[in-house]
Amino acid sequence: MRRPRILVTNDDGIDAEGLEMLAKAMSKIGEVTVVAPNSPQSGMSHAMTLGQPLRIKKAYKHKKFFGYAVSGTPVDCVKAALAQILPEKPDLVVSGINHGSNTAINILYSGTVAAAREAAIAKIPAIAFSLTTYNNPDFRYAAKFAKQLALKVLKHGLPVGTLLTVNIPNLPEEKIKGVAVTHQGKSKWHETMIERADAYGEPYYWLRGELVLQDDSLEDDEFAIRNDYVSVTPISFDQTNYAFLETMRTWNLKK
Amino acid sequence: MRRPRILVTNDDGIDAEGLEMLAKAMSKIGEVTVVAPNSPQSGMSHAMTLGQPLRIKKAYKHKKFFGYAVSGTPVDCVKAALAQILPEKPDLVVSGINHGSNTAINILYSGTVAAAREAAIAKIPAIAFSLTTYNNPDFRYAAKFAKQLALKVLKHGLPVGTLLTVNIPNLPEEKIKGVAVTHQGKSKWHETMIERADAYGEPYYWLRGELVLQDDSLEDDEFAIRNDYVSVTPISFDQTNYAFLETMRTWNLKK
Repeated sequence: MRRPRILVTNDDGIDAEGLEMLAKAMSKIGEVTVVAPNSPQSGMSHAMTLGQPLRIKKAYKHKKFFGYAVSGTPVDCVKAALAQILPEKPDLVVSGINHGSNTAINILYSGTVAAAREAAIAKIPAIAFSLTTYNNPDFRYAAKFAKQLALKVLKHGLPVGTLLTVNIPNLPEEKIKGVAVTHQGKSKWHETMIERADAYGEPYYWLRGELVLQDDSLEDDEFAIRNDYVSVTPISFDQTNYAFLETMRTWNLKK
Repeated sequence: MRRPRILVTNDDGIDAEGLEMLAKAMSKIGEVTVVAPNSPQSGMSHAMTLGQPLRIKKAYKHKKFFGYAVSGTPVDCVKAALAQILPEKPDLVVSGINHGSNTAINILYSGTVAAAREAAIAKIPAIAFSLTTYNNPDFRYAAKFAKQLALKVLKHGLPVGTLLTVNIPNLPEEKIKGVAVTHQGKSKWHETMIERADAYGEPYYWLRGELVLQDDSLEDDEFAIRNDYVSVTPISFDQTNYAFLETMRTWNLKK
């Protein structure tokens, strides 16, 4: 039986520790190709590069070929992998392991999730992995869990148009309380702007925010991770609000 | 009765004709504030600026104050408007009128739609408007339709978390066949990469694509606009695939 082909990408860039950990975990179960942004792309969401060409360069780690660095967004990386770099469609696309969680509203802003979403658009099973910290990350349990879940997805498949966003607490395995299958929670950013003056007295503004918990159940992704559970959230790229279609049809939109 | 307060933004940037047409149409029904990117931001999706401050500058048109130009993405513009520029929450946010359609998969890539989505996250009714052409745009009917629909949304409201993406054929009013309430169609890009060599012989790549129609009903947005209907699609920012949650719970994810 041929080994599964796995594309590994991220949004923190080709040099990120989380990417290397994920590639290493995936190489235990399949043939890995790494295609990642050549610079950090956090918060880039599903952005793609228009009107500019892309560079694709070979990247090396520990004096060995590691993968391809693309001068674009996470979504560009998946497009470049599918259209140019890979000889055939991979069996699985994994993205991460992100430095920082991608729950609730952050599912929209995340480049890590967007890369997996772009794979789902191309009808390839895809998973985004995130570790719930920016500081002192310990990727060991996250990498182990990623391997386990990748095997399950390779076995069961995912519905067409569906991807998974997975958030793993930054804890040793024995402190993890369990795995919660969750939905996109309602927690969101409370944002303010801070004004500063430049050397010429002209103002500029820093956006500053705090993610406010608005959930209270282990079925909510952000609540789950704050309570030391891994959260696994299946999401879809069809954004239609089907329930509201019929209501709108009563609006007499022609005038 | 006080007039509704309307925030107008876009992704083509502060200088775009479509933005001016939309602001003009909205000024007939409410108090308008324009906050738009200082440069074109097509394809930026729901990206936000992290780790960089924003500049906010007053912009003038026809020698009169027109609005605020922000050095960021469409989503940054809405965040800046809500956190810094506007004295209170607006009653409606409209985005566009985009040069080019935002149907099917383009709903994901669009900065125009993302600006409206960011407003929906802040619980403000929001509509993204797009004209289905890049060349020789005639915004007259689109602007008229935008005014009509804005009045309906101000009257009826929208469900929390729901926004509308509206696509208007580039035709005079008498050639428009009707208004279709649609869902996000399945049409998607067939993409290839073209390799070029720079002056030093190094390769770079252009992503090139064609939107392939995969729909056959007036309930599909892309099919509707190709048949000279206006399409109105209600979308939601909750991406959870609820139908698949229970299936995943049978997967025994703990090992």
